[in-house]
Amino acid sequence: MSSIVKQLDYIFKPESMAIIGASDNIAKWGHMMVERPLRTGYKGAIYPVNPQGGSILGLPVFRSVKDIPAPVDLAVITTQANQVPRVMHECVEKGIRGAVLISAGFAETGGEGEDLQAKVMKIARAGGIRCVGPNGMGIWSAAVCLNNAFEEAPKSGQIAFISQSGTFGGYMSELANLKGYGLRTFISIGNQADLTVADYIEYLSYDDETRVIIVYMEGVKDGQRFFNVCKAALNRKPIILYKGGSSPAGARATMSHTASVAGSEIVFQNVCRQIGFIRAEESFQTFEIAIALLSQPLPPGRRIGILGTGGQGVVSTDACQKLGLKVPELDEETSSLLMKMLPPHAPAPTNPVDFAGSYRTAVDEANVVETLLKLDYIDGVISNVPVNPLLWSSRLAKTGKPEIIENLNKITDEGIKRFCGLPREYNKPIVCVRWYSSVKKDPVADQLTQSGIPVYDTPEQCARAMHGLVNYAELRRRMNTD
Amino acid sequence: MSSIVKQLDYIFKPESMAIIGASDNIAKWGHMMVERPLRTGYKGAIYPVNPQGGSILGLPVFRSVKDIPAPVDLAVITTQANQVPRVMHECVEKGIRGAVLISAGFAETGGEGEDLQAKVMKIARAGGIRCVGPNGMGIWSAAVCLNNAFEEAPKSGQIAFISQSGTFGGYMSELANLKGYGLRTFISIGNQADLTVADYIEYLSYDDETRVIIVYMEGVKDGQRFFNVCKAALNRKPIILYKGGSSPAGARATMSHTASVAGSEIVFQNVCRQIGFIRAEESFQTFEIAIALLSQPLPPGRRIGILGTGGQGVVSTDACQKLGLKVPELDEETSSLLMKMLPPHAPAPTNPVDFAGSYRTAVDEANVVETLLKLDYIDGVISNVPVNPLLWSSRLAKTGKPEIIENLNKITDEGIKRFCGLPREYNKPIVCVRWYSSVKKDPVADQLTQSGIPVYDTPEQCARAMHGLVNYAELRRRMNTD
Repeated sequence: MSSIVKQLDYIFKPESMAIIGASDNIAKWGHMMVERPLRTGYKGAIYPVNPQGGSILGLPVFRSVKDIPAPVDLAVITTQANQVPRVMHECVEKGIRGAVLISAGFAETGGEGEDLQAKVMKIARAGGIRCVGPNGMGIWSAAVCLNNAFEEAPKSGQIAFISQSGTFGGYMSELANLKGYGLRTFISIGNQADLTVADYIEYLSYDDETRVIIVYMEGVKDGQRFFNVCKAALNRKPIILYKGGSSPAGARATMSHTASVAGSEIVFQNVCRQIGFIRAEESFQTFEIAIALLSQPLPPGRRIGILGTGGQGVVSTDACQKLGLKVPELDEETSSLLMKMLPPHAPAPTNPVDFAGSYRTAVDEANVVETLLKLDYIDGVISNVPVNPLLWSSRLAKTGKPEIIENLNKITDEGIKRFCGLPREYNKPIVCVRWYSSVKKDPVADQLTQSGIPVYDTPEQCARAMHGLVNYAELRRRMNTD
Repeated sequence: MSSIVKQLDYIFKPESMAIIGASDNIAKWGHMMVERPLRTGYKGAIYPVNPQGGSILGLPVFRSVKDIPAPVDLAVITTQANQVPRVMHECVEKGIRGAVLISAGFAETGGEGEDLQAKVMKIARAGGIRCVGPNGMGIWSAAVCLNNAFEEAPKSGQIAFISQSGTFGGYMSELANLKGYGLRTFISIGNQADLTVADYIEYLSYDDETRVIIVYMEGVKDGQRFFNVCKAALNRKPIILYKGGSSPAGARATMSHTASVAGSEIVFQNVCRQIGFIRAEESFQTFEIAIALLSQPLPPGRRIGILGTGGQGVVSTDACQKLGLKVPELDEETSSLLMKMLPPHAPAPTNPVDFAGSYRTAVDEANVVETLLKLDYIDGVISNVPVNPLLWSSRLAKTGKPEIIENLNKITDEGIKRFCGLPREYNKPIVCVRWYSSVKKDPVADQLTQSGIPVYDTPEQCARAMHGLVNYAELRRRMNTD
């Protein structure tokens, strides 16, 4: 453990870095690798390196990494491939311990590139330098605000994302950013000449600020080690996997993309089940599931209580059951209890509980959800009516009766606060569908999100998030009894 | 045909409407039914009706619908259920031809409610009034800007949405609105005491401004008529169906929600296939598929060309193949042709075509897509690199070289214009994944959308949209050969 943490801290928590191949040409990677961390707030020292010297963006350029008059933790290398052996030698001499190899033209190009890559790795290994890449698109590490992968730094968060595709990983990260999901770490792993997915998972499994790991991969290197590392890591935190190349034509594409042998989908599925990954059916579902795992307690079982009005309850129930979750019917006592909380015209309460299209206050909703969470045969709740006072507020605003609005706002605040406290109180998860209430900006959803309740667009997303929680909970229980 | 169009035009294109049960109490439906159309721009006359008289929102209130001194096309009825027979009698006497029954307390409550509903329908039928509901949440009709279903009027568009759930239909519509998808019509169908899903589909199939029909339903009434009507309608436009109650627990929920017998999922699946619906796997996918059908030509087959960088191509390919679409390999001539359009380090062009992480201009992208569309063995294109000059622009903006920026903008405009013209030119569809390029607002995506190219968040959404296009195209070809 300690050795990989120590080694990779030079890469993800460097106090200083040299950008080798730094360039004044804004079209070049060598420019971006200086400009991005500088602009987006990297906390350490940045040393551009280029034999031509001069300055870039106000920073003096060193002719060699060896000329830098201070210790350097990390080298970011963007030179032409044939320069990299020389550069790596100099990094060893300088005592650098980590490298991010952006340069392309190695194993991904076949024959000679493979030899060149082997040569570079030999130098790095002998000199004690661990390498990301080559042929990657950079990293983000919230620990030191080091960003060279993105034009803008991602929102800081507790999800680590390891991606075998630089562009697609970048794209998904930006989509996540747009949805407000924060990233602890992003790694475009490139050719994995030295560090592999297994290494990153091992490292991240010891990082307390990383709560969930997402992996986009197209093939596995060193299956046995991968298996063992993931098994151990899953004891500490969930890993959500999306694998590219699961179809025959997709597998053909992974060959030309990362030279990955995607392998048999059925074999891989079985391995995933054995290891205990949460496997996402679609690429971005990885993030949707992750945010529930970040904030919610693990459910004691797979029996879900659902709150909805009409069709939402139906769609939620379908989605849960298709994923193998259970939606048990309610006992008579609970049904009578709930009847008092629902509008008079609502149907006899069962599961899903139907609010019958009525506008309820946040307190009403908290009461119903609490009633469900109290049941020993309900393990988590999906709520499709997340406190919906906005329509009321906007309507009331037109009447000019400030005392009514004030009272409603008070009830709403009280209800939301209670609602958001329920997962901790009962140690069972809640996930929500937002309710726009005809307003484009949904402050209630924001409030729920800020209080750690995951809010989604659709009932199906909720069901998948709950399914992810259930899967990981079951894995942890299996591990504990092993 | 003409009879249903004539009859339902009174409901969806009324020149005037009476709100019976109009109320000054903002908490009541009788208030919303006046306030919403008034505020959101209904083009006809609004006559509030309430035995107490007075005025509501500046409009004089008539004590009876019979007192209104002008013809009335549509009655929106929100009175208590037991008042509805009397009200319906008066509507008949007034010569009203359409009614939207918001009032609840009918068949959905069982025994007595059923009798009451039958009584109301007898009066309406004898008097020649066609009815929406009862127990519905209203309608939206862009034809006359009539909105009583939503707090804000939806964006006007060419999708009609028939929903058996008022609240969930409303929620999905608002989500659609938020994504910029416009609605021609929304109907919360309620108990379908008179008008059924089949009637609405028949009516909408003759409305030229309706290009796609989306249906959320929980059960079928009068299966044979439904079958025949849909068969005929599908010859004119696509129908996308999402059915609630497809799981056992979901079916239990539809019973208490709309007293719908969800029926055997397998039987229903077979019927859908026979009829030729496009069936969505998830609720909101209905809209995602719809926007492709609105704008794109139908593909001549199911062989898809894919443009992507690395992982995006892989994920797109997987998603296509899982849905039964084909991703054929390219012939050598095309591969050589494409090689000249790609960066030198890109792998040998195959399908998916890999841009190898390079920033391309919109013209480059248009060239590659055009090369694919020209092939007689490619029926449509999914593009994962929709013209990505923004990153360049934002980078270039920092250099202060206006002539470069200007040139890039010119190339971008030219490329986007060509790109957007390709579907018409080759009569084959294009769908895109947006590319944020590290900017939160994506003007290129907006430009594409405005030019009628559907833009999605994920490769999987693109594949589903393309699958919807392929399915409908195949149905039309089957119909033409029958």
